[in-house]
Amino acid sequence: MYGFENETYLKVLHGAADNIEQIKRIVAEIEEKGYDHVFLVGTGGTYSMVSPLAYMLKTNSTLEWYYEIAAELVRAKPKKLGKKSILITASLTGTTKETIEAAEYGASVGATVISLVGETNSPLGKASTYAIGNAASNDNLCEEIYLQLFAIGALLMKGNGEFPECERFLDNLRRMPEVLLKVREENDEKALAFAEKHKDTNFHMCIGAGNTWGETYCFAMCVLEEMQWIPTKSIHAAEFFHGTIEMTEKNMSFMLFKGEDETRPLVDRVEKFVRKYSDVVQVWDTKDYALEGIDEDMRKLVAPMVMSSQLERVSSHFEHVRNHNLDIRRYYRTVEY
Amino acid sequence: MYGFENETYLKVLHGAADNIEQIKRIVAEIEEKGYDHVFLVGTGGTYSMVSPLAYMLKTNSTLEWYYEIAAELVRAKPKKLGKKSILITASLTGTTKETIEAAEYGASVGATVISLVGETNSPLGKASTYAIGNAASNDNLCEEIYLQLFAIGALLMKGNGEFPECERFLDNLRRMPEVLLKVREENDEKALAFAEKHKDTNFHMCIGAGNTWGETYCFAMCVLEEMQWIPTKSIHAAEFFHGTIEMTEKNMSFMLFKGEDETRPLVDRVEKFVRKYSDVVQVWDTKDYALEGIDEDMRKLVAPMVMSSQLERVSSHFEHVRNHNLDIRRYYRTVEY
Repeated sequence: MYGFENETYLKVLHGAADNIEQIKRIVAEIEEKGYDHVFLVGTGGTYSMVSPLAYMLKTNSTLEWYYEIAAELVRAKPKKLGKKSILITASLTGTTKETIEAAEYGASVGATVISLVGETNSPLGKASTYAIGNAASNDNLCEEIYLQLFAIGALLMKGNGEFPECERFLDNLRRMPEVLLKVREENDEKALAFAEKHKDTNFHMCIGAGNTWGETYCFAMCVLEEMQWIPTKSIHAAEFFHGTIEMTEKNMSFMLFKGEDETRPLVDRVEKFVRKYSDVVQVWDTKDYALEGIDEDMRKLVAPMVMSSQLERVSSHFEHVRNHNLDIRRYYRTVEY
Repeated sequence: MYGFENETYLKVLHGAADNIEQIKRIVAEIEEKGYDHVFLVGTGGTYSMVSPLAYMLKTNSTLEWYYEIAAELVRAKPKKLGKKSILITASLTGTTKETIEAAEYGASVGATVISLVGETNSPLGKASTYAIGNAASNDNLCEEIYLQLFAIGALLMKGNGEFPECERFLDNLRRMPEVLLKVREENDEKALAFAEKHKDTNFHMCIGAGNTWGETYCFAMCVLEEMQWIPTKSIHAAEFFHGTIEMTEKNMSFMLFKGEDETRPLVDRVEKFVRKYSDVVQVWDTKDYALEGIDEDMRKLVAPMVMSSQLERVSSHFEHVRNHNLDIRRYYRTVEY
């Protein structure tokens, strides 16, 4: 596969899976001390990555949670954030300024800060109560972060007397590296065809819902806009019908991000509409993959990882088809602001 | 002022202010019964309108709250939603399908449903435990909804032993109709100039934060896209720097929505950047208005209403300058889907 090394990928994802034991110890320590609620915090890509964990807690748990943009949290200073809070965040480099500030602010008011980082001695790692390290790179980051976040969520729910399937879910997570590698391989050809078809497309409308909404937002902003400089709009499938629908044109590119949770019918509804009023519709559907070795009832929970894996192939092929390196930026960390 | 009747406006807003007494009785009844948390629920425009109430609770209260898209809530069925929940929502016509379903679902699991509607005997009103009625129209809806939502929030906080300034805040709300009318008058000329300048602009990047983020999202989607068929992207000021920034062009229209809460520096940061890299920047700043009669420390809390009032002038002038009626739709309630 273009721009991809199987061994590195498996190593990174198994690294994340191996961290489950450490996560168990951390969650046990936090529960021993007691907590009241969870703040899920991120910036850009990591803001989108904590989104499925919010959805997991919403649909499976009575735990109290809040989902926050790091820089807004630091300014807004949620009244609730304090000694009884767990603040969960991530940054691969551990140098994202806003995320570090959120961790520092959280720690300063007594919150227990858990961060997922590439290096535990990075600034974010140092600002955290618990830093969980796993060296990754941009093309495997989402899956390895999801794996660890989902493990944290599952264990917190188990500790709350919920989610009796926790251990089985963790076993499924441990099997994900090979499963996701296969997803990449299976989607390689389709992704290349998409990249070639859309070599010169100058706008994509990205639509998703539920636990793949984060991937929708992320692919639009962090891949198409940031890495390929292609304008997008991302809009939630339910919200699409209340304004953005009027933008629909026969030649507008629609990218639909379909997972397997309870909100799937919301994206189905959009698909039904856009198939009628646009000629350029692409559905990225996690159901297209066998996910051999994954329990049927766990598919919906791991769907964000599957979504991310299939989309990485699209990013990768865009890079060579469009002759646009994924790492160049016009402004970010390039100019002063 | 074009397309505007002062008397109607004041009547609608005073109608909302007069409802504060009813809201007091409702909140007292709910507190008598007891509740654990609040679900803030909406669809499209009303989803954006409940956003500042979420921000108000986050920054002033330890009350537990969740902010949900109506159709997603109905599918996701939050585990927490039940007998101990207050579900707060709104729909002017009381006929928004997804919002009615959310109210019905909430009621079916025992939640106390409060709805703000034009007519209490509308379908949404009938589906609610408490329906609060005030006949409004699209050009005054936001402010009258905000007024009532803010009163509910303030009273819930007061009941929670917080927000000692509650009664003074309610007095400020009662003075808002005349204050907001003046905002409209003061912004009329500037809004007309903006509409004329942007008669043919084919894309606007809309950026906001904190309690005016809802207005940012709403003006982009419900006014520019839905009512004027002009493409937009709305992005949170903190998130802008993590992807969308790469879209910046010298000729890209930036609309910044600046309120007066703790997150104002996040929008300042965007302004500083876009003033350097774009020639087409418009800041809609609630600080531009004297708001005579409003206490200094209350300005940040009422900023979403001020933002909405000034923006209504923009919508209104776009209508005649662009010869595009605000009420016509290509798809919504026009075709079947």
